[in-house]
Amino acid sequence: MNTSSLRGLFVSELKDLYSAETQLIDALPKMVNAASSDDLKMAFEDHLQETREHVKRLRTVLSDMGERAEGETCEAMKGLIKEGESVIKSKGDANVKDAALIAAAQRVEHYEIAAYGTACTLADHLNMGDAKSKLGNTLDEEKSADSKLTKLAEGGWFSGGINEKAER
Amino acid sequence: MNTSSLRGLFVSELKDLYSAETQLIDALPKMVNAASSDDLKMAFEDHLQETREHVKRLRTVLSDMGERAEGETCEAMKGLIKEGESVIKSKGDANVKDAALIAAAQRVEHYEIAAYGTACTLADHLNMGDAKSKLGNTLDEEKSADSKLTKLAEGGWFSGGINEKAER
Repeated sequence: MNTSSLRGLFVSELKDLYSAETQLIDALPKMVNAASSDDLKMAFEDHLQETREHVKRLRTVLSDMGERAEGETCEAMKGLIKEGESVIKSKGDANVKDAALIAAAQRVEHYEIAAYGTACTLADHLNMGDAKSKLGNTLDEEKSADSKLTKLAEGGWFSGGINEKAER
Repeated sequence: MNTSSLRGLFVSELKDLYSAETQLIDALPKMVNAASSDDLKMAFEDHLQETREHVKRLRTVLSDMGERAEGETCEAMKGLIKEGESVIKSKGDANVKDAALIAAAQRVEHYEIAAYGTACTLADHLNMGDAKSKLGNTLDEEKSADSKLTKLAEGGWFSGGINEKAER
């Protein structure tokens, strides 16, 4: 972690996010396969498409700064994915497993909401309007993915939610 | 991860949170020592006190269910703390380091916000009003700790924030 300057910190944070997002691209297809609800499968698939876009945006922001998108491993995302894998491997009730997959995915979304929140604030302090706008778009998409998962768990999209089914 | 029933999932989630919070109790004093700003040191110290209370609440909820607070290791918190340690070890500008410590702590808060959000929802589905209320109190304190850190970074408590100092 580079704490020599605000710019250095910003670059470290972007590289950490790049590592996080690329790990997520590998993990999301496994979440799609493990899900039983078609709506949940679709939500994970949609988020996989968005995540590919987030990776592109990070690469552009770093490249505009003359930096390469490498050199950091996001340890937190490694841990978050390990937790997701323990859900994927679990042999339980299909609806409960869907509820557990949502719980794991929402932890991932919140990690990203915190990290992109910081990145946007740093871009603002560094007067990097274009980077701030790109990272802000991603932040909005992460927040919306999190809300979508809450709706899927608690119902609203279809009558009753996954948690209600898991109660039975 | 137990996905055999919603109750089983709830217990797994509580044990995961118990592991997360106890890891945090070990990590927070290191964050206090690494911080330069007195306000930031105080924010971490205050949150350490709150975290001790969160651990007690989890133990009570689990014990009321006839369960012991053991058996899970929160892998995500392990990763989050590793990231925090890379900031603690960094040799940079004191204000930039404070900004990086805030960024790491906010990731931790968001992890907990997501996890307690899930736990409260599950308690609600299981008609466990007392557990829901205890976990809801913790959720509110995690959200408030996150807002406090944003204020410290962006100013408001004192003129200018840590990020502004780190710009210089």
